[in-house]
Amino acid sequence: MEFQFLGTSSGTPSKTRNVSGLALRGPGGGWSLVDCGEGTQHRILDTPLSLHDLRAIFITHLHGDHCYGLPGLLASAGMLNRTAPLALVGPPALRTFIDGVMATSELGLPYPLDYIAVDGLAGTPVLPDLAVDAIALSHRIPSWAYRFTERTVERKLDATRLRAAGIAPGPVWGELQQGLDAVLDDGRVLHAADWLLAPRKARTVIVGGDNDDPSLLLEAARTAEVLIHEATYTEEVLLKVGPAPMHSSALRVARMAQAARLPNLVLTHFSPRYQDGAGPLSMGALEAEARGVYTGSLFLARDFDRYVLGRDGTLAAKYFL
Amino acid sequence: MEFQFLGTSSGTPSKTRNVSGLALRGPGGGWSLVDCGEGTQHRILDTPLSLHDLRAIFITHLHGDHCYGLPGLLASAGMLNRTAPLALVGPPALRTFIDGVMATSELGLPYPLDYIAVDGLAGTPVLPDLAVDAIALSHRIPSWAYRFTERTVERKLDATRLRAAGIAPGPVWGELQQGLDAVLDDGRVLHAADWLLAPRKARTVIVGGDNDDPSLLLEAARTAEVLIHEATYTEEVLLKVGPAPMHSSALRVARMAQAARLPNLVLTHFSPRYQDGAGPLSMGALEAEARGVYTGSLFLARDFDRYVLGRDGTLAAKYFL
Repeated sequence: MEFQFLGTSSGTPSKTRNVSGLALRGPGGGWSLVDCGEGTQHRILDTPLSLHDLRAIFITHLHGDHCYGLPGLLASAGMLNRTAPLALVGPPALRTFIDGVMATSELGLPYPLDYIAVDGLAGTPVLPDLAVDAIALSHRIPSWAYRFTERTVERKLDATRLRAAGIAPGPVWGELQQGLDAVLDDGRVLHAADWLLAPRKARTVIVGGDNDDPSLLLEAARTAEVLIHEATYTEEVLLKVGPAPMHSSALRVARMAQAARLPNLVLTHFSPRYQDGAGPLSMGALEAEARGVYTGSLFLARDFDRYVLGRDGTLAAKYFL
Repeated sequence: MEFQFLGTSSGTPSKTRNVSGLALRGPGGGWSLVDCGEGTQHRILDTPLSLHDLRAIFITHLHGDHCYGLPGLLASAGMLNRTAPLALVGPPALRTFIDGVMATSELGLPYPLDYIAVDGLAGTPVLPDLAVDAIALSHRIPSWAYRFTERTVERKLDATRLRAAGIAPGPVWGELQQGLDAVLDDGRVLHAADWLLAPRKARTVIVGGDNDDPSLLLEAARTAEVLIHEATYTEEVLLKVGPAPMHSSALRVARMAQAARLPNLVLTHFSPRYQDGAGPLSMGALEAEARGVYTGSLFLARDFDRYVLGRDGTLAAKYFL
């Protein structure tokens, strides 16, 4: 599984960070987009991602910095002659938003949009390779986290035991690997379940929307490999700004991640007031605050950075420079 | 007067060209924006332009590549704590578009929007330094050109005649320059109108929206210094694509400009199929086609290029490299 940030700024774009957008790829083909702030299609032009392979778009909430890029991206996919249906998952008002924009701008699309309201997601298989469910967050408007979990996990043959039982590598191994029962030359029947190692854990990545209460994700984070969560402010700035914007500080997210023993935490959605360099309004200040309480693998997202989550649950960042 | 291109691509952005947007500055303070495709606010970040000094936005028509950047730009101006009213000029459905997006995304703005429907523009003074009127074009949806003309033109004293009449430079000259009558020491009264040179022509810049019939601008172009017009295709491609998209070729616009004896023609809104270099799908092909029939000053717009229109009607390009 892998993901790439297309935008990591909160509210407005800066010269180096666009507003929210995340490309996510499961073990199957194609990719999904989580949030689509203005300029997401422009970011995509600078990646190998194609709008033809996009399978679904998940919108966490309807604030502009998370959805204003959607009409333009849909239009461009149309001008590229996309014909495959595209799933649009989000709050119910997402459909009102898109229908309204399409009507006033007389936008027609050569492919169907399949709207899936976030509260009806449980019964709808959106992606072939990833099971997706949504977790309600706390923000000024309804906001959600999406949890993506591998649907199937490959199982390995217990080669050591097979060899010890005198069964040499050959067609029988192949049948067992596929989950089939196999019959030996001497008539013995081997049941696949007896000769496969216990499956590894299916990988889970959670992508949060805007949220001022990280504890809402505590239970989910206990069984996830990765949480991508907003850290709009440092705690000092959050206390100064007050609770009205309903965002999280790096400190609060990191505390929850530590309590959940989450292995990999990726922070994003930074207020444009934070710049590179040192001082209280720097990315370093956000990072230091999180590192002070969180002992897992911590990452601060930047636009275009790619992350690969290995089968063993290790998250590796491939920085864009 | 000057203008700067923020986007010069038709339909979808490319790696080097964004969709439509043009910053226009008259002789007074502040600036105006004509069209606001997705990513216009991102382009503005890379210019000295400030959303605080923006006085008015003119939308030629409601296709997405000309207006999808508007909600995000309005939101960002709000986050920058803009308080001055902003004029929004466009087709009547512009208000439906913005109201719908603001409602579904719960966008509030700390400054008022003054909607001015394009057909009510004649009686509404939008800008202090430029008179603006609109000319209907021909496109798949209602589309307009905006004509910007200096409201006042400075007049020069006829220094030669004053000196010949024995009136030396002094306070009297200042009064006449301001258009006031002046009384000489000997009691003679000089009327300003008698001692001012004929005013130069007020400069006019026309910015067209999408349009498949350049002749609709023929009369206006006869008295304009500059026309900025779409040239989506070469004539060859236009004939291949057919008339349905209702765009112009470089050839058709240039022919009209020649017929109008227009001094400066700036082509823009190029189909992304045209690239730098040579061949039938190159910017060179678009340029050659126009130069073949037009003998005035011809320019092919590129993103970020700035143009300065001098008082003498000369248009100078300041290329961004």
